[in-house]
Amino acid sequence: MRQFIVIGHEAPTAPDFSLDDTAGGAGRLDVLCRCVTAAFFLSHSIRSDVRCRLVLSDSYTVRFEGSSLRRLNPDERSTAARIKGALEQRDHAIGHMETNPSPGVYLSRVGTETTLTNAAEEGTVIQLHEDGRPMGAVDLPSDPVFVLSDHRDFTETEQELLSETATERVRLGPERLHADHAITVAHHCLDTDGYAQF
Amino acid sequence: MRQFIVIGHEAPTAPDFSLDDTAGGAGRLDVLCRCVTAAFFLSHSIRSDVRCRLVLSDSYTVRFEGSSLRRLNPDERSTAARIKGALEQRDHAIGHMETNPSPGVYLSRVGTETTLTNAAEEGTVIQLHEDGRPMGAVDLPSDPVFVLSDHRDFTETEQELLSETATERVRLGPERLHADHAITVAHHCLDTDGYAQF
Repeated sequence: MRQFIVIGHEAPTAPDFSLDDTAGGAGRLDVLCRCVTAAFFLSHSIRSDVRCRLVLSDSYTVRFEGSSLRRLNPDERSTAARIKGALEQRDHAIGHMETNPSPGVYLSRVGTETTLTNAAEEGTVIQLHEDGRPMGAVDLPSDPVFVLSDHRDFTETEQELLSETATERVRLGPERLHADHAITVAHHCLDTDGYAQF
Repeated sequence: MRQFIVIGHEAPTAPDFSLDDTAGGAGRLDVLCRCVTAAFFLSHSIRSDVRCRLVLSDSYTVRFEGSSLRRLNPDERSTAARIKGALEQRDHAIGHMETNPSPGVYLSRVGTETTLTNAAEEGTVIQLHEDGRPMGAVDLPSDPVFVLSDHRDFTETEQELLSETATERVRLGPERLHADHAITVAHHCLDTDGYAQF
């Protein structure tokens, strides 16, 4: 399974944001929505063997499961609506117990540290970072958990957490990419791994 | 220079669409908007040496120039607003004469055939296609013009035009990707070309 964790530093923690302003009033939720699209969409199907978690301002985590997602659309607005719908159910997320507001979407009241710890138990944590080793020099694991940041850099606290949980720091190429573009490239590297012709 | 042409089969040709429904009422303009973002955005800058053309329902072409683009944002809605603004100036695009509604954005009253012919004079046309040669087997030109289709397949007429203008048909990997994800991967392949470590 391929996993992605995207840390949203200014993401909403309540459903009172406008779908007309996800890039402004909703704390750059547009970035997180594009990450979900990059994580799951192929041309005419969904990547079922993918899990993607969005950490919302260190307060909530929305987990998307490719194996059970239904009616996900690739545009930002409809994904934002799905996150808004999850936040409307936030009172049902008690302690570490998740709520399941729509097929394949889960919301829990946990922040970055617990999300990273949970993911580290499920796979090999890889931090995508400009100072990391080049992707081509790394033996890609079969259970990667890529950790990315939204439009902001990782905070010092996040860096410390990652230094404890991440097995590798990896750089995808010579350019610094948006988080969603990095997810697309990571998929590409995994898709083509073992295919000499690509 | 890297160029991208994205053919939008159901894209609007008038500015009377709602920014709240680009994935529905505006003929999947969301796909074209994400293509513009993929073509131009790096983490904290714009790729200045890129040109991206969107063909709107074989009637208009919007050309984005990285060297002169200003205030482009990565979210779908703001890019859709830029296209809407260009279409509001469509009466100023007469014959093949372009209008320049905002910095780095040009609108002309030309369809797929003229756009492809113009681009073929500027660079090496490459059709991204599932039946193409693997990207790794192709010597990448320094002036590629990648031609992609939106959520629909190329029509027979477009296939014929491409067979006349395209030097190569290239496949990026074993999976079929959305057009915007294909642009991100094409950039990645060009970015890392010549860097053995990637």
